[in-house]
Amino acid sequence: MTRLSPRHPRYRSLRTRAHLADLARTGLVVPEGLIAHGRGEAFDYFLGERTTPSARRAIRAAARWLANARHPVVSVNGNVAALAADRVARLQAARPGLLVEVNLYHRTAGRARKVAERLRDAGVVGVLGVRPTARIPGLPSDRARVDRRGIWVADVCLVPLEDGDRTTALRRLGKRVIAIDLNPMSRTTVAADLPIVDELTRALDRLVVELGRVGPTTPGRFPSFDARGARTAARRAMATRVGSARGRPAAAGRASSRPGRGTPRRSRRTP
Amino acid sequence: MTRLSPRHPRYRSLRTRAHLADLARTGLVVPEGLIAHGRGEAFDYFLGERTTPSARRAIRAAARWLANARHPVVSVNGNVAALAADRVARLQAARPGLLVEVNLYHRTAGRARKVAERLRDAGVVGVLGVRPTARIPGLPSDRARVDRRGIWVADVCLVPLEDGDRTTALRRLGKRVIAIDLNPMSRTTVAADLPIVDELTRALDRLVVELGRVGPTTPGRFPSFDARGARTAARRAMATRVGSARGRPAAAGRASSRPGRGTPRRSRRTP
Repeated sequence: MTRLSPRHPRYRSLRTRAHLADLARTGLVVPEGLIAHGRGEAFDYFLGERTTPSARRAIRAAARWLANARHPVVSVNGNVAALAADRVARLQAARPGLLVEVNLYHRTAGRARKVAERLRDAGVVGVLGVRPTARIPGLPSDRARVDRRGIWVADVCLVPLEDGDRTTALRRLGKRVIAIDLNPMSRTTVAADLPIVDELTRALDRLVVELGRVGPTTPGRFPSFDARGARTAARRAMATRVGSARGRPAAAGRASSRPGRGTPRRSRRTP
Repeated sequence: MTRLSPRHPRYRSLRTRAHLADLARTGLVVPEGLIAHGRGEAFDYFLGERTTPSARRAIRAAARWLANARHPVVSVNGNVAALAADRVARLQAARPGLLVEVNLYHRTAGRARKVAERLRDAGVVGVLGVRPTARIPGLPSDRARVDRRGIWVADVCLVPLEDGDRTTALRRLGKRVIAIDLNPMSRTTVAADLPIVDELTRALDRLVVELGRVGPTTPGRFPSFDARGARTAARRAMATRVGSARGRPAAAGRASSRPGRGTPRRSRRTP
């Protein structure tokens, strides 16, 4: 639609937004997914659009859990496919045996196929979840539908951009849940065993790097993780940034140095 | 799509989201508008989903400015029409002479007509901006297009959910800009003469009440407003809420008291 200027202080955000808006027009991303993306943007803004030291530790622990898992599965919804299909492929390459399963809140058969196709185009192999074969108990709606070979038997589930009910249902099934979610107070982040409070693409990039560094693995061993501490650290990072006078992210701060600010106004040029 | 349960801890948010998603399907709301709504949601979450004392003072000052304005205009985009057409009508009833102008970032003639129609259906009279007759200098894109009888000659512009470039352009034209925006660090909030950091419908409801209380008016008199102080107060309110351990809004907090939390797990019922 509108042309974007690379000089706009929020160029990167705007480009991602335009990309998601385009994919919403194709039906891959649903309107609710766009709203969710907006929430994430705001939280990332508060986080300073960077991976905090605490999130780095969480990602390192997540790499260890995924490496030691017997049946690791990453759950992919429309937004994840839209924002990071390529990174999911790289993650799978970095952790052989990692299964990738499509799981949609707003499921239609056509949409599930579209998400799977996008994953395959990006290089993901053996995409599950297009024709679900099992149901997670206690969850209404189509989110409950999973694959018998995938999430159903998983011991570790990586759920980026997940909803709270589903995270809770997975935990009730005894699975270890690693979440990637920018909201430190969301039900997903609160419910996850290992919440990574970071932006999706940054977190996945770093997770790929960390998987390359884990060294020897011990299947079934999952070193404990201080989830509460991670949530508190994320909240504190945001609070510090918002509360301080210099709390604006660099990009947004630049916007306020535009010409004309601080000069006398009241020169009424309006007819 | 999915049925919403009134017992869901985020029922109100979910209902608004579903409403906006529906209107996105009709084209009244654009995908970018959905993303913007998500950002607002996150900021409101940080604010505790309530009008702060500082926002209350801002709204009182805004009522005074609108009452004393010679040509007050409220600018309405797709999201404002979707979320608060009824409140815009009530605002116009509470401030006779207030002009209402459609102004769209993503403008098509059809969309402008749709927004105007929704406003008229809600009871707004004399809707301007469907066929713009002037251009704000220095602004590329269709946001620059305004009505000669409306924003072009306005002395006070109320711009809810505005973008930063346009707020700046309006100020350069010597207009007093009252913004309603949940992001205390947004370019709009930073550029506005009188930023109201509050959720749209809450702010408009309160503005209508305050307009009923302003008493005698003095056209052209605009008591000074401490915009910087208002921004700082909003940031502090958010920081306090996010940073404290009990920083979760009540509705979100309730979610964590769902059954099963805090009970021992590791009972692997997965086959």
